[in-house]
Amino acid sequence: MSERTDDVLAERWHDLMGRYHRISCTLDRALQAEHGLSASDFEVLQLLFGAVGDTGRRCGSDAGWVQMHELGQHVHLTQSALSRQVTRLEKAGLVERATCVDDRRSVQTRITQIGASRFVQARPTQRAVLRESLSV
Amino acid sequence: MSERTDDVLAERWHDLMGRYHRISCTLDRALQAEHGLSASDFEVLQLLFGAVGDTGRRCGSDAGWVQMHELGQHVHLTQSALSRQVTRLEKAGLVERATCVDDRRSVQTRITQIGASRFVQARPTQRAVLRESLSV
Repeated sequence: MSERTDDVLAERWHDLMGRYHRISCTLDRALQAEHGLSASDFEVLQLLFGAVGDTGRRCGSDAGWVQMHELGQHVHLTQSALSRQVTRLEKAGLVERATCVDDRRSVQTRITQIGASRFVQARPTQRAVLRESLSV
Repeated sequence: MSERTDDVLAERWHDLMGRYHRISCTLDRALQAEHGLSASDFEVLQLLFGAVGDTGRRCGSDAGWVQMHELGQHVHLTQSALSRQVTRLEKAGLVERATCVDDRRSVQTRITQIGASRFVQARPTQRAVLRESLSV
């Protein structure tokens, strides 16, 4: 691979970083100002909202529970950062946490009704930013 | 714009985030293991290395100086995070900082010879990760 091709790759990576940071920052500002949520809070709520009614994700007899490690992979946070974030969301009443009845070692999280309602309110804001930021 | 299109945009944003985080994490691991640099350190050194010999970036009679706010825009860090990072790089002898002789309020940074040499050593590692991670 030539040095020129390598430099093109470095530029593409720099562009990808710039794109990510610009959109992330715009989402954070808009969601925080209008709904008191960070972009990362929104991603957590979005995954948990999608899991409601998904009977594949089941803990005991209730649907909607998602394992912490699955959530961590989805939102690209370390375990400790995710744990702090879920604690914050739990205090705000937007999610709840429980130990799975089938596996006591497994901590799972579920969106609450208040969380679902806040997510549905915030979604148009997130989608509007994405329409502005990503070309279709 | 339809709800379906909006959901496609949300998926594209999720893919972009995933791509950014995967590459960023792989770069961090490789650069840290082989050169003791973070991906963000590398970006700072890359910009400063590129500024050497660029006479457009000039402070007093010397080329190679880059203003902190310009560096911050390039690496997408807040002013305080960038300041901490440059302090670390300065302690490691990889960059130096000075007040511009033409404008005492303006703090500028320049790569040192040690920093340039470390950057040139680390560059093939970064480029190899990008070749693996970004399709040409």
